[in-house]
Amino acid sequence: MLEHLKQQVLEANLDLPKYNLVTFTWGNVSAIDREQGLLVIKPSGVSYDVMKVEDMVVVNLATGEVVEGEKRPSSDTATHRALYLAWPEVGGIVHTHSRHATIWAQAGRPIPAWGTTHADDFYGEIPCTRAMRDEEIKNQYEWNTGEVIIETFAQRGLSPTAIPAVLVNSHGPFAWGKDAHAAVHSAVVLEEVAYMGLFSQQLTAGLPPIQQTLLDLHYLRKHGENAWYGQK
Amino acid sequence: MLEHLKQQVLEANLDLPKYNLVTFTWGNVSAIDREQGLLVIKPSGVSYDVMKVEDMVVVNLATGEVVEGEKRPSSDTATHRALYLAWPEVGGIVHTHSRHATIWAQAGRPIPAWGTTHADDFYGEIPCTRAMRDEEIKNQYEWNTGEVIIETFAQRGLSPTAIPAVLVNSHGPFAWGKDAHAAVHSAVVLEEVAYMGLFSQQLTAGLPPIQQTLLDLHYLRKHGENAWYGQK
Amino acid sequence: MLEHLKQQVLEANLDLPKYNLVTFTWGNVSAIDREQGLLVIKPSGVSYDVMKVEDMVVVNLATGEVVEGEKRPSSDTATHRALYLAWPEVGGIVHTHSRHATIWAQAGRPIPAWGTTHADDFYGEIPCTRAMRDEEIKNQYEWNTGEVIIETFAQRGLSPTAIPAVLVNSHGPFAWGKDAHAAVHSAVVLEEVAYMGLFSQQLTAGLPPIQQTLLDLHYLRKHGENAWYGQK
Amino acid sequence: MLEHLKQQVLEANLDLPKYNLVTFTWGNVSAIDREQGLLVIKPSGVSYDVMKVEDMVVVNLATGEVVEGEKRPSSDTATHRALYLAWPEVGGIVHTHSRHATIWAQAGRPIPAWGTTHADDFYGEIPCTRAMRDEEIKNQYEWNTGEVIIETFAQRGLSPTAIPAVLVNSHGPFAWGKDAHAAVHSAVVLEEVAYMGLFSQQLTAGLPPIQQTLLDLHYLRKHGENAWYGQK
Repeated sequence: MLEHLKQQVLEANLDLPKYNLVTFTWGNVSAIDREQGLLVIKPSGVSYDVMKVEDMVVVNLATGEVVEGEKRPSSDTATHRALYLAWPEVGGIVHTHSRHATIWAQAGRPIPAWGTTHADDFYGEIPCTRAMRDEEIKNQYEWNTGEVIIETFAQRGLSPTAIPAVLVNSHGPFAWGKDAHAAVHSAVVLEEVAYMGLFSQQLTAGLPPIQQTLLDLHYLRKHGENAWYGQK
Repeated sequence: MLEHLKQQVLEANLDLPKYNLVTFTWGNVSAIDREQGLLVIKPSGVSYDVMKVEDMVVVNLATGEVVEGEKRPSSDTATHRALYLAWPEVGGIVHTHSRHATIWAQAGRPIPAWGTTHADDFYGEIPCTRAMRDEEIKNQYEWNTGEVIIETFAQRGLSPTAIPAVLVNSHGPFAWGKDAHAAVHSAVVLEEVAYMGLFSQQLTAGLPPIQQTLLDLHYLRKHGENAWYGQK
Repeated sequence: MLEHLKQQVLEANLDLPKYNLVTFTWGNVSAIDREQGLLVIKPSGVSYDVMKVEDMVVVNLATGEVVEGEKRPSSDTATHRALYLAWPEVGGIVHTHSRHATIWAQAGRPIPAWGTTHADDFYGEIPCTRAMRDEEIKNQYEWNTGEVIIETFAQRGLSPTAIPAVLVNSHGPFAWGKDAHAAVHSAVVLEEVAYMGLFSQQLTAGLPPIQQTLLDLHYLRKHGENAWYGQK
Repeated sequence: MLEHLKQQVLEANLDLPKYNLVTFTWGNVSAIDREQGLLVIKPSGVSYDVMKVEDMVVVNLATGEVVEGEKRPSSDTATHRALYLAWPEVGGIVHTHSRHATIWAQAGRPIPAWGTTHADDFYGEIPCTRAMRDEEIKNQYEWNTGEVIIETFAQRGLSPTAIPAVLVNSHGPFAWGKDAHAAVHSAVVLEEVAYMGLFSQQLTAGLPPIQQTLLDLHYLRKHGENAWYGQK
């Protein structure tokens, strides 16, 4: 079942080492079939070297039960489910410990929009969640990781379409998009702006974010109904 | 038409991933045929993996119209045109978001000439443009990006031959040369000195630029009519 | 003799360049056969390019004598022996000069547990040994390197199972695990958290360690009898 | 003539891109035949991709004249000659603009011996030359670059055998050894300690150098008549 989606999820997972976003098995990508209410996700702790399409695990979005697959799904599956349930516009999700996004997450700091590289794919600052409370960690930790991400977006009035990534405090990034491929794209851009921002703010103390007009121009020429970038 | 130039532009574009200057499609190279008043440029948003010589787009320098090619030209074409029109000595132009040059651009700082690596190809500090004004962004943004580069060189009395690159504030670098190949060369050196300068100025606070005599020696042994470096 | 173990040790040694942990021959991995009281270790100063299974050296754990092998064992063999003798739970040991772990070792600083990447494999701060005394350096230096590591763990009440790595002051890291493969795993994670911690603490001055509950959750879901991560 | 030496010099030059020490043609290696008073050096400005053994240039040590070879020798040939003439113990010399060694050179700072990686091959701090005087730059610049290196070692009472590298102020590193291969080895280690030192001194302000006993132990176990490291 869902062979086409499984193939997409496998390829998106294999893009993680290709783009230097993962060490060992530290990453996972999922994608969702909204009509059937099923998501496909990487199995837990399986090496990218040997991962095959039949290793992908099909999970019931509503209940979290494994519907198909001999392997256990990623330990982060509940986080993916929480995000899919909260955000109907999201079709694919990726989690990594990519080095520079994780550096910001560990420091507990959001990444301001400091340039057009950022503005081309993120319509403003990439937020960092608050630290999770002890009870959130002790019970249903992975689900609550999703909850604290959703809370972060809700409290700041952010759209997951406009800001397709988040830094989970003391942990690392989650990124997403309309499908698995787009989610990996978001994760790559996030890592890039995390790297560049780290050093830009060292060069100029108190560096202000990019001017609003330039943020608008770059984001809107690539996204939204009036976008004009790329091939039509 | 312009098959030879298209081949050069293709090869120069493929050098961008080879020298680690680009992620995804974030870069473009063009070259110009001055006699015919035509420029050849990379298509917009096409992956380097599948780019072919017939994807290159031929554009009228004066009008910006596409003369040949089924794909849309790079969204930065107007910037290239503005520079070619202002600077007759330039034969090839490259734009990237290479990591360390972009770090300086985002910080809004020029790169001082801090060593002979810099002096070998840049005859002084590599400037950073002023922030663009709202009206410059809202109307003809790509053309105005070229205009603000030209203004930067004019106000500082700089020669685009002597300083073959610029940092566009909050954005990233443009570099150029007598042809597409030379433009990529400038972009590689720029990225190298951007990296080294970032850390040299951390080691020695208030680091002064290289002494003038050494700047002269290194630049002039490679450039100008009395150059003596390399094979004759 | 010990052909299976030799093969494991060879493969683990070859993983060091694969994971970018070594330059030239600056690293060595060993593993132990506890029943026979023998350890297998990389030969001294042999290039990874030409290393073969028959180059592995078999050493008597108790006496340090070479039992089999035509080459001399790693110059760090005595350090490995001291650790195996003190810590019966350790089955494999690796020493490298991996760049970022060595940066912390040279600075004489431990690496705090700043994120879940760290917590997934290290149950707290990775310690740095005190500087060795002149007499410890002048006599049986390599053995005493082991002794000062053991002292570091004893004085802080640390378990080598819970913290499978150490920074030797002014020198570099040692890491270990239940076998040679696990030891390399520890060395890779150490290098990763050394890199990320270096920059996280630049972003947030006085960065506190990860909260205890989160450290517990991440470490214990992967380690110990109640672990639930990965495939069963 | 000197076919064996030419082959060695070619291989050593090709090791520069292998160890990521060069961009484009920014590096050169030479080696000397003391009996014949001839040195073999890389040609100027020739790409590593196409470099062949017959491109190597044979130069008279005493006079600097090209004895064999159709190409022009490296523009740094006079620096190599000055060092060979002053230091009879040196058999091979390498010059690069390797990133991190150049960062220190541009900052005008020596690299203290901060760890055993350094001590394994350098018996103390790697010096940085003074800035060259205008008249030294304007006349016989490359020769005077050698002279200022020699002066640096003489004034500090340093042995080029014990400290096989130097940072030329505002420029980059030269390194050497008993032959071309050993010279490249020195250049690789220099780059490694330049990287690590850069960040170690950020972690611990005012970081003191490695203790003398440890410097002695590590240097002397690999170098000098009582060395015991590696295979005999």
